[in-house]
Amino acid sequence: MAHTAAKPARRADARHNAEKIVQAAVACLGRNAEASMNDIAREAGVGRMTLYGHFPSREALVEAALIRLLAQGDEVLEAVDLSGDPRDVLRALMESGWLLIAQAASVLQAAQAALPPNRVQELHAKPEQRVHDLIRRGQVDGVFRADIPADLMASVLHHILHGVAGDVATGRLDPTDAPRFVAQMALAVCAIPPTHAGLPAAQ
Amino acid sequence: MAHTAAKPARRADARHNAEKIVQAAVACLGRNAEASMNDIAREAGVGRMTLYGHFPSREALVEAALIRLLAQGDEVLEAVDLSGDPRDVLRALMESGWLLIAQAASVLQAAQAALPPNRVQELHAKPEQRVHDLIRRGQVDGVFRADIPADLMASVLHHILHGVAGDVATGRLDPTDAPRFVAQMALAVCAIPPTHAGLPAAQ
Repeated sequence: MAHTAAKPARRADARHNAEKIVQAAVACLGRNAEASMNDIAREAGVGRMTLYGHFPSREALVEAALIRLLAQGDEVLEAVDLSGDPRDVLRALMESGWLLIAQAASVLQAAQAALPPNRVQELHAKPEQRVHDLIRRGQVDGVFRADIPADLMASVLHHILHGVAGDVATGRLDPTDAPRFVAQMALAVCAIPPTHAGLPAAQ
Repeated sequence: MAHTAAKPARRADARHNAEKIVQAAVACLGRNAEASMNDIAREAGVGRMTLYGHFPSREALVEAALIRLLAQGDEVLEAVDLSGDPRDVLRALMESGWLLIAQAASVLQAAQAALPPNRVQELHAKPEQRVHDLIRRGQVDGVFRADIPADLMASVLHHILHGVAGDVATGRLDPTDAPRFVAQMALAVCAIPPTHAGLPAAQ
């Protein structure tokens, strides 16, 4: 009986260790995007055997840390009211997204360096789908331009948000007012261009 | 005399080898962003000793390949007439930039993976300065919005161009019409928003 009783206990231990490791990875990579597997094992208080037993490579662990932050971010974005004028909703989503990305800047930087190209954006499928659906609704409602595909605009908003947050994280841009400006530029990308209102256009 | 005559000859040889290596790096990384130092040595027809004598690390060689492509791209961008309506010039710069980035997509991907964060954008200082100066002129002329700093808008255009080109390179987005749409979105970012023309705005 000791044998069968030990099994669930070992499984609970393993879950507990995996959880400690992911939390340690989020903390370590959040302080230093180049934190090593040893740094993370030390922070988690586990040995290298245990660490590699759960995460066979640094890449796997960096991905797990990013997935954890995205899940936490998703709870924040879930709280944004998606009804109402799509322009107001877009501004709210961009501003919330900005805060989340700014908090996750160091882990995102680690992920960009450790994961294959495009993987970071693939992991953002859920927040990007939310923005995509909002843009579609705005196009149907006639408040967003319909002459550019919604998936292209959603991708551009992702690049603006992540690119500018990266510029701020690396000290290239002043963070003052950046979130407000980013939301304004996102609205400009989606807005119906002035040509449609009879204004002179460059085209 | 043989001694002093040999020196310039050796220097010419070294220059010739360095040139062959950079060309081979551009070609190899252009086919495969993960090309190794061995692949590049084979393509250049030089030994590992010679290769590492010129470029002590893969990072150094990837950077040299990107710098070469940027110099070639600069010649193309130099040919764009910067006078005239800033909106027309911006469209021309974005479309030329798009073509250059599409051609360099694989080398850019290698550089994003091998160089420190922000380094790829730092190496784009010259094309970005050109766009920045154009935005400033458009702000002074009153055709671009002046309520967002020119350096932030220039950075956003960089992220849009590189982000969307990356999406196309990784098969995430359909390249059809992408360059035209990207130019339109760039213009939308810089344009004076409809609020200023008495149109209803979301704010």
